[in-house]
Amino acid sequence: MGNGEQSAPSPAIVLVRPQLGENIGKAARAMLNFGLTDLRLVSPRDGWPNPSAGPAASGADMVLANARVYDSTADAVADCAHVYATTVRKRGVTKPVMRPDEAAAAIRAEPGGSAILFGPERSGLETDDVAIARTILTVPINPEFGSLNLAQAVILVAYEWSKGADLVQPSVTPIDPPAPQAELDGMIEQLDQMLLEAGYFFPPDRRPTTQRMLRTLLTKPGWNSQEVRTMRGVFSAFAKPKRR
Amino acid sequence: MGNGEQSAPSPAIVLVRPQLGENIGKAARAMLNFGLTDLRLVSPRDGWPNPSAGPAASGADMVLANARVYDSTADAVADCAHVYATTVRKRGVTKPVMRPDEAAAAIRAEPGGSAILFGPERSGLETDDVAIARTILTVPINPEFGSLNLAQAVILVAYEWSKGADLVQPSVTPIDPPAPQAELDGMIEQLDQMLLEAGYFFPPDRRPTTQRMLRTLLTKPGWNSQEVRTMRGVFSAFAKPKRR
Repeated sequence: MGNGEQSAPSPAIVLVRPQLGENIGKAARAMLNFGLTDLRLVSPRDGWPNPSAGPAASGADMVLANARVYDSTADAVADCAHVYATTVRKRGVTKPVMRPDEAAAAIRAEPGGSAILFGPERSGLETDDVAIARTILTVPINPEFGSLNLAQAVILVAYEWSKGADLVQPSVTPIDPPAPQAELDGMIEQLDQMLLEAGYFFPPDRRPTTQRMLRTLLTKPGWNSQEVRTMRGVFSAFAKPKRR
Repeated sequence: MGNGEQSAPSPAIVLVRPQLGENIGKAARAMLNFGLTDLRLVSPRDGWPNPSAGPAASGADMVLANARVYDSTADAVADCAHVYATTVRKRGVTKPVMRPDEAAAAIRAEPGGSAILFGPERSGLETDDVAIARTILTVPINPEFGSLNLAQAVILVAYEWSKGADLVQPSVTPIDPPAPQAELDGMIEQLDQMLLEAGYFFPPDRRPTTQRMLRTLLTKPGWNSQEVRTMRGVFSAFAKPKRR
């Protein structure tokens, strides 16, 4: 943060007066899944370090080990250019309100470090904490059932942020393209001949219509060459039954 | 589901062999936050109902009360036209892979009911469960720290789905949805039996692998009910050749 990088650095996750060590650990785990590592704690209720945090972090120990502790929210975000306050419901605030995806885009677009504040488990952020932020971050949830816990709120924000990160590109397994038309036609002709021999086309004058329907049906899958060969093998098994 | 509604219904969340009741409750809570209510359980390890689920649901009791229990994944998705298998890592699958936002868009765009499969906490979905799905759903995560728990995976998918909830539904394209899974299974079983009789599976110990490959191949088209019936008629023509 604020170290002169050209592009916007990853946002800091600031847990304000978190109550349970377990939830701090879960938040660390949520963060690291999506590449966030800057965890800041404001006056954690049970002190720090907290022995309950490690097991809940499920291996995200480096996030906990590097967590920094502050006495006040202001201290925790002193080096940040952009502060977002996460709230479930808007409480008459006169600040811009963003969804997680909008906030993630803003964090990426704007130069300078960002911090995202999350309040205590039960009560959420206090008015004085919200006052420090320039922007409200709200997750749109079911108006009849809003029950996001701390780590879930963190993971949704981290997930949205990660969408723009290069590190999370999944290695896509290349899917074979559909077989060339000639191979598809070969399969269709084989099937057509077998169906003719089996007396499938009845009455005979409906054959062109039925053929067209079968062609449509067999073109739809976009089977690749291997799959077309497999289906021809299946058809051949019926043409020449060879009980072993 | 499949009741003739014009717009795509909300997807069902299918927990396959979940281990802890607590995690079932957390998944229900995650769902309801984003408006999902159709929870299905396949062979929950500790039976159902599970006394640990309620407290973890934090008020999402109606989701738990309405949860349906099935003996097999196939039974759980029998009425669904679109089945997605959630996996953290792809294991050489030859199916389309979607991110949660892409899957959410697809579920909204396509007619017919959808189901999203989530595997057991420790091991994830087995190959046979993945084989039932036409599409793989993968959350892109930190390649150096992938540690999403069950409820977190559910909440990310539900969150993405909820983003389009307020949007006006586009007029649905008049394309028949894929046949319900039970109809697809019926066709696959018919073919399997015929191939067994024709001596297709050789050597016999390769049968499971070959069956899985055929299931993948026949799931790929997304054939509608009429097309599935047509293919069954084609197979039947080979089973009982009647030269006219």
